[in-house]
Amino acid sequence: MENKFHMDPEDFRRWGHALVDWIAAYHQNVGDLPVLSQARPGEIRAALPPEPPANGEPFAAVMADIDKIVVPGLTHWQSPNFYAFFPSNTSFPSILGELLSAGLGVQGMLWATSPACTELETHVMDWVAEMVGLPEQFTSRGAGGGVIQDSASAAALCALLAAREKATGFAGNETGAVGNLTAYCSTQTHSSVEKGVKITGIGRANLRQIGVDDFFAMRPELLAAQILKDKAEGKIPCFVCATVGTTSSNAMDPLPAIGAICRQHGIWLHVDGAMAGTAAICPEFRHFQDGIDLADSYCFNPHKWLFTNFDCDCFFVADRTALIKTLSILPEYLRNKATESGAVIDYRDWQIALGRRFRALKLWFVIRHYGVEGLRHHVRRHVALAQEFARWVTASADFELAVAPPLNLVCFRHKGSDDLNRVLLERLNRSGRLYMSHTELNGRYALRLCVGQTHTEEAHVAAAWERIQKTARELKQEQAADSS
Amino acid sequence: MENKFHMDPEDFRRWGHALVDWIAAYHQNVGDLPVLSQARPGEIRAALPPEPPANGEPFAAVMADIDKIVVPGLTHWQSPNFYAFFPSNTSFPSILGELLSAGLGVQGMLWATSPACTELETHVMDWVAEMVGLPEQFTSRGAGGGVIQDSASAAALCALLAAREKATGFAGNETGAVGNLTAYCSTQTHSSVEKGVKITGIGRANLRQIGVDDFFAMRPELLAAQILKDKAEGKIPCFVCATVGTTSSNAMDPLPAIGAICRQHGIWLHVDGAMAGTAAICPEFRHFQDGIDLADSYCFNPHKWLFTNFDCDCFFVADRTALIKTLSILPEYLRNKATESGAVIDYRDWQIALGRRFRALKLWFVIRHYGVEGLRHHVRRHVALAQEFARWVTASADFELAVAPPLNLVCFRHKGSDDLNRVLLERLNRSGRLYMSHTELNGRYALRLCVGQTHTEEAHVAAAWERIQKTARELKQEQAADSS
Repeated sequence: MENKFHMDPEDFRRWGHALVDWIAAYHQNVGDLPVLSQARPGEIRAALPPEPPANGEPFAAVMADIDKIVVPGLTHWQSPNFYAFFPSNTSFPSILGELLSAGLGVQGMLWATSPACTELETHVMDWVAEMVGLPEQFTSRGAGGGVIQDSASAAALCALLAAREKATGFAGNETGAVGNLTAYCSTQTHSSVEKGVKITGIGRANLRQIGVDDFFAMRPELLAAQILKDKAEGKIPCFVCATVGTTSSNAMDPLPAIGAICRQHGIWLHVDGAMAGTAAICPEFRHFQDGIDLADSYCFNPHKWLFTNFDCDCFFVADRTALIKTLSILPEYLRNKATESGAVIDYRDWQIALGRRFRALKLWFVIRHYGVEGLRHHVRRHVALAQEFARWVTASADFELAVAPPLNLVCFRHKGSDDLNRVLLERLNRSGRLYMSHTELNGRYALRLCVGQTHTEEAHVAAAWERIQKTARELKQEQAADSS
Repeated sequence: MENKFHMDPEDFRRWGHALVDWIAAYHQNVGDLPVLSQARPGEIRAALPPEPPANGEPFAAVMADIDKIVVPGLTHWQSPNFYAFFPSNTSFPSILGELLSAGLGVQGMLWATSPACTELETHVMDWVAEMVGLPEQFTSRGAGGGVIQDSASAAALCALLAAREKATGFAGNETGAVGNLTAYCSTQTHSSVEKGVKITGIGRANLRQIGVDDFFAMRPELLAAQILKDKAEGKIPCFVCATVGTTSSNAMDPLPAIGAICRQHGIWLHVDGAMAGTAAICPEFRHFQDGIDLADSYCFNPHKWLFTNFDCDCFFVADRTALIKTLSILPEYLRNKATESGAVIDYRDWQIALGRRFRALKLWFVIRHYGVEGLRHHVRRHVALAQEFARWVTASADFELAVAPPLNLVCFRHKGSDDLNRVLLERLNRSGRLYMSHTELNGRYALRLCVGQTHTEEAHVAAAWERIQKTARELKQEQAADSS
């Protein structure tokens, strides 16, 4: 009875089927649940026993607690009424891919520790490079290649490290980062770049946040001027991050101009396309990344808008040598013939961690299930729905766009005060019928509606617009009543 | 027909059930497959179409390729005959937890983005702290607390960053790491610490690898002397990593002595218990971590030896303030009332990335399914099997232990030459009947047999020992024939 406490395969089949059914039903009904969790701090913990169980419990008890304890504490990112932040969408084929990855339980740190884990990833990343129109150097056929990271934050960190090492002749790794490196992004760049300069020892004081134009895109002439100023002061500019679709407002930095400046000064250009990068699978949206051939690295997140569950960031480099030289380690206990032959990729040298699970499976499942045309269809629908919403806003007497929306994110506001918009958002989110977030643009509060959920259809967006208008009218009436 | 390319819920049920059944059968039969993949470089890629499919494929075709393309390219980490590296074991309850996490698809970067995701994690980490006997300061009731990281590498990196910032008065984040920081580990410490000092800008030249004793444990008197020497030279010692169970040979660094030195000099002590830390759930093995109360941070990996699939590293800090201050960022688009109230935990400030999935579910499922006693039973069995194997080695005329095994990892060698051991390992692994790895101890090659797989029972270990002896005899006979 050596295996007496393990779940037996029959029970796994039974509970596995039950959980698959539960997930199917969850996705069918998630639109009826309040999107933003209405839990109060501490409420979920209060429902849990203070001590771990000494003896195992029947799995039926665990299943029951999913509905009783877990679901009421969720903010439902898969709801068709979720429009906050960026989407983190998924799909049934992706869930199956993640299930298989967990079931196989292999490690892909080295080619030898599961060749399929490495080779499928390399292959699917080449597929993705083709799907989004990346130039040849970002594929395994060229000098570079792709790797799956857990997040755009990790991708930016790896890019920053490679840039740091390239700029210091690989002395940063050895003697510590030199204090006179500088890095560049815009005032609108994702906070992960700020986190990255802190982590890598470059220092936040050496990150230049370049000003933006009326569309919140980086102004290349200000970038060029800042680089010259820094060089004149003895600084070593090493890294520029440009964004295809900023988090705040989906602004598009001008890659050709930024890329030319980086080439001129020999600076590493990283391009972050976290959400909007997915749009490049449609030829008509690919122009937003014109100039990507000038980049040293690029990433976007299928776990945001390509129906693949978190975590799945696709990170591409134009030249894998600098990255590998930066992150490579080889202790005795990991030495093996395949690695030493040089004929294989060991992805542990392309990332921060050593261990890695088989994440390519879910991306492979998604691409094969939908096909490129199927994925394009849904991405186009999301963009069309957001653009329709933007037209409603423009046509309305009470609302206005905060900036013209390039793709699937609409930043808008009620023409009333910032405070009115703040209260409006809070009331809408508290209703549970939709969930949006906010940002600040030119010092003014703006509402953000981002269309990207797998289950979002036209009726949901129309209902959201109705509710936004109705709630705003109610607020105005209350204000009028208060002041009379 | 807006959703025309999505998999419909009925198909998901059908394929989900089929995949669950496939995984159950895989685990029942994995012991019959060659453990180490026999694929040649490029073989898996050659079986894949060069282009992504333009149109979606039937899911039956995807399922068929799992057996045809994926399985032959796997090294089977879940095989009962897997003894290489460290285990990365899993269990059916854990697989169900990962499935649910993928099915829900929520983000836990902020408390507000799914309160259950944060609160269940905090709660389960308190359970784990109690299960492995950590002092109160590592729980959410004290000044510290736990968080799930993807790997011990990430945990070490976060600890290094907090140590760097504490030592520089949080100036590293701001102005860049100062070049005169030093960090300490032993010659046996995991390579992730070397990777960490490179990443954080401390620099590999400032990492002191302290010598070890006959049991490969760090010598505290050498650590103390090196710290004094560095201080005399104007260096600022900021970080020591001690290990409970080194990767190479499961050596146990003396925490009380190391901890006392760290306290004396005000140096951050991080303790890495990646695999062996799991043993502390059994009171009789807990003495290996005596002195843990002197640590500033600690981690171990349930994804190694606690039946929880990768990724699940449990990282604990004694004082959360330094960690949060080091990693915190708050752009406008993430501001929310719950965060500003201070009443909740936002785990994005406890890790490198911003996004995070619901990893606590699988750990919760595992603990509830097995109960603490069930987990103890299986860990004790693994240790007993390894100790029995070590007795067989000791009793054998041809083999010897390379070092006494404290727990579940046996380092041993044939009494012949290093070359004979090298060829022996290669032949054993090529047989597909078991998979071991190697290390180097005192300049000599040693074989590593680590018992930690969910499905490993006494018969498997006995068969491995038989095969090792038989293959060695064959090799000796061949050598004798060659030289005659």
